[in-house]
Amino acid sequence: MTEPSYPTALGASSRETITLLGHDLARDVMGSVGFGELAFWLATQRRPEPGEVRVFEAVLAALADHGFTPTAIVTRLTWLSAPDSVQGALAAGLLGGGSRFLGVTEDCGRFLHDALTALASTPTDAAGWDAAALDVVRRGRAAGRFIPGLGHHVHKDGDPRTPRLFEIAREEGRFGPHLALFEAIGRVHPEVLGKALPLNGAGVCGAALADLGLPLELLRGFALLARTAGLIGQLAEELRHPVANDIFLSVDLHNRPVDPDPS
Amino acid sequence: MTEPSYPTALGASSRETITLLGHDLARDVMGSVGFGELAFWLATQRRPEPGEVRVFEAVLAALADHGFTPTAIVTRLTWLSAPDSVQGALAAGLLGGGSRFLGVTEDCGRFLHDALTALASTPTDAAGWDAAALDVVRRGRAAGRFIPGLGHHVHKDGDPRTPRLFEIAREEGRFGPHLALFEAIGRVHPEVLGKALPLNGAGVCGAALADLGLPLELLRGFALLARTAGLIGQLAEELRHPVANDIFLSVDLHNRPVDPDPS
Amino acid sequence: MTEPSYPTALGASSRETITLLGHDLARDVMGSVGFGELAFWLATQRRPEPGEVRVFEAVLAALADHGFTPTAIVTRLTWLSAPDSVQGALAAGLLGGGSRFLGVTEDCGRFLHDALTALASTPTDAAGWDAAALDVVRRGRAAGRFIPGLGHHVHKDGDPRTPRLFEIAREEGRFGPHLALFEAIGRVHPEVLGKALPLNGAGVCGAALADLGLPLELLRGFALLARTAGLIGQLAEELRHPVANDIFLSVDLHNRPVDPDPS
Amino acid sequence: MTEPSYPTALGASSRETITLLGHDLARDVMGSVGFGELAFWLATQRRPEPGEVRVFEAVLAALADHGFTPTAIVTRLTWLSAPDSVQGALAAGLLGGGSRFLGVTEDCGRFLHDALTALASTPTDAAGWDAAALDVVRRGRAAGRFIPGLGHHVHKDGDPRTPRLFEIAREEGRFGPHLALFEAIGRVHPEVLGKALPLNGAGVCGAALADLGLPLELLRGFALLARTAGLIGQLAEELRHPVANDIFLSVDLHNRPVDPDPS
Repeated sequence: MTEPSYPTALGASSRETITLLGHDLARDVMGSVGFGELAFWLATQRRPEPGEVRVFEAVLAALADHGFTPTAIVTRLTWLSAPDSVQGALAAGLLGGGSRFLGVTEDCGRFLHDALTALASTPTDAAGWDAAALDVVRRGRAAGRFIPGLGHHVHKDGDPRTPRLFEIAREEGRFGPHLALFEAIGRVHPEVLGKALPLNGAGVCGAALADLGLPLELLRGFALLARTAGLIGQLAEELRHPVANDIFLSVDLHNRPVDPDPS
Repeated sequence: MTEPSYPTALGASSRETITLLGHDLARDVMGSVGFGELAFWLATQRRPEPGEVRVFEAVLAALADHGFTPTAIVTRLTWLSAPDSVQGALAAGLLGGGSRFLGVTEDCGRFLHDALTALASTPTDAAGWDAAALDVVRRGRAAGRFIPGLGHHVHKDGDPRTPRLFEIAREEGRFGPHLALFEAIGRVHPEVLGKALPLNGAGVCGAALADLGLPLELLRGFALLARTAGLIGQLAEELRHPVANDIFLSVDLHNRPVDPDPS
Repeated sequence: MTEPSYPTALGASSRETITLLGHDLARDVMGSVGFGELAFWLATQRRPEPGEVRVFEAVLAALADHGFTPTAIVTRLTWLSAPDSVQGALAAGLLGGGSRFLGVTEDCGRFLHDALTALASTPTDAAGWDAAALDVVRRGRAAGRFIPGLGHHVHKDGDPRTPRLFEIAREEGRFGPHLALFEAIGRVHPEVLGKALPLNGAGVCGAALADLGLPLELLRGFALLARTAGLIGQLAEELRHPVANDIFLSVDLHNRPVDPDPS
Repeated sequence: MTEPSYPTALGASSRETITLLGHDLARDVMGSVGFGELAFWLATQRRPEPGEVRVFEAVLAALADHGFTPTAIVTRLTWLSAPDSVQGALAAGLLGGGSRFLGVTEDCGRFLHDALTALASTPTDAAGWDAAALDVVRRGRAAGRFIPGLGHHVHKDGDPRTPRLFEIAREEGRFGPHLALFEAIGRVHPEVLGKALPLNGAGVCGAALADLGLPLELLRGFALLARTAGLIGQLAEELRHPVANDIFLSVDLHNRPVDPDPS
């Protein structure tokens, strides 16, 4: 059998040096590269430009923490139960980052990407985007499909993250076709659906990440990266102002024993 | 029973606004706050100064990825086996961030903290730090205890991250007592141990995080945050240049069935 | 707000007693109920009959361990890296139980269930099942869909678990419509696909679990339960005859640094 | 480099056969070996006797489910948030199986083992065990150490699992030194501590597992195996009688925004 060989452009070490993405880690990365910039670079193997970093970090900020979400509660309860394992508490919280809560970011990016791929040509003005968006929404409705990124259970009059991310992307010259189509869907969908729904923050983040050229298969991963910072914040707050035991008791003390319901 | 109440200063939403750490997320955080800065802020509930952010991000860069570590292999193999769940692949990798590999950062920060707490007074010059360090190393040796942060299996002549992080911390006026004691341990330990060991990067990162005032209980958490970015990089590379199946086969094809060894 | 109330028929405690599924745990469950029986009971809230337990435990045995699978390797590597956390090592291994490896059990059970639901009437003899199976395979092929449970990369001439599970189910009077349809698919598919593929063990386990009336949404869960026992076996073997560090080194020592490939 | 070789006595496959622990899986394991028996066998590589299996399965029953524990809540919330990933929901729940909740089983087994190792000779009657236990409790108290397995926040007058497991172990001739010492600690500790505490179920399970010769390093693993069955029960109940969203809302609706508390 031939020797195996596992290529990688990520971290590598010799006795004297450590390289990361082909650069000397100590000399050229540490002290010079911000963490958002590094995360982008690791995911694409190309160093992003400052405008890309600003959009990317705005997305991460938008997704970092939303208070007592299931993932935050899970991380706090897991730490209560297993305080010896910070890694377990963080991992448990991230495992809630699936199809329902964090999934919108990925679903929206993919949905827009598929819709763009199907266009005969890329629109060049708002009217063109509106026409494309109308077609997308109509076909989605005809197929009985849900359009990712539309609607929010709290921000019914508009998610404040959405116009802000449009604005930042425009400032940085990173308002690409995914954001353009998403914005147009926001304009035209009431005509088809008969009601106005907000474009939500998770969705616009997916559009922005797709416009940055980040891999669609990993869009959920960036939401999870943002959330890791948020979950550390949750643990730090739990450490000083604990609530997990009260949450546990609020459930346990309200348990109501019922007879088995055989299936 | 009185209504429960769960205080938090992290994310909060109303119909119109989203706040994070008491600030308007869309207006004051998105587009203005870098991701490293935000992670620091979430963990301490105080906005760090630019010099603190630079040291913090240097630490995150130092810990983000080291190539084919067990955590990287685990994330790739889990994705191979369950490609439907990016969150599972990342969580699995983070679960390797325990006492042996990532733990040094936390152990070193705590060790230095405990040693500093035990000092009668904080030294004011290198000779004073050397004396304190000598005492620490001698007592550690007498107790048969391992000193965290000393030694590296590859970088036997010195870990290049260590002097670089000293330098960055000095440039930013963030070279505090944890780093000072750690550096002094590096100078004096050969006198006690009879051999010169390098101060490793994981250890110096723990010292730097402790000097930044980050909670000792969560130092491992920052290593995990850094590693999350690295693991996303691993997945992105696996997506385009897959090796996980070859790794799996390299093990499976070399399995050697043996008789049970009853215990 | 009214007081919340969380009904459950599972575990409940008072100062004097503990009940599980409405039974006194100490008096009526401990010492009387086997572990496979208990797992079945917990999942369905009805106590299974002995024949059901035998089929169920045969399925669990079939799925418990397959040597150096990705999940086994992941559990060993995670324990190497974080020996302080057995729960982390087991959880990491389970996270590989997704769509590709363990998913066949669930996919096959669902596939058969959907096919049975679509039948006008349940066949009463082998010819009837063959006709139903032919229709299922033809429609699957026409739709370009893969039929779960068909094919195995090692057991190309037949997976030995399949006839054995058919036999056990027949012995216990638990050979229901899911197994019947699956067996018929095994007979007729060569006529449609032009080649004979084995019915694999993961698939037949899904069919048997579905015939036992276990919830389709959780079929993967039973594969994970079986695997938990297998992963504990992996850890116990690793404890006495460690290989994880060799596996890690076999990858790390064959890493090949390459230039970044910007995307 | 020589070819690597990874020995294992667990699962192995050839084109025709599958073996597990050196036995033909289909012919000799499926249909003949119960799941508790198999889990024991996998962990020790020796087939247990029926009496051992009965004690082992009694332990698993004792630890399988305790209602709305943090781990159960975590599994339900994770499934709410990521319904696409049963493996993630189970893994998240298991991650709570750490030092505080499930850890007592392991801690108690180890504590008793260490105490037994330190004895000059094994007592042969109750008086001898009492003397040994007195010494253990006195030394524990002198060292300010907590004795694992003593005390329960609900079952203040006695945990019903404890006498039942003593009884089952005696019936099966498996009442060994760990259980004997644990029972004696239950008799003598009031003399030293000045109050009578119950011997809890988690502790007696650890003692019983140690008497069965199961590896001390993995005692927590058996608690996790039991809990996996319980968590599947939690998911099955959630599927038909959901409470996770109510739990989430009961927390989220009682959040109270407070000012940041800078550290």
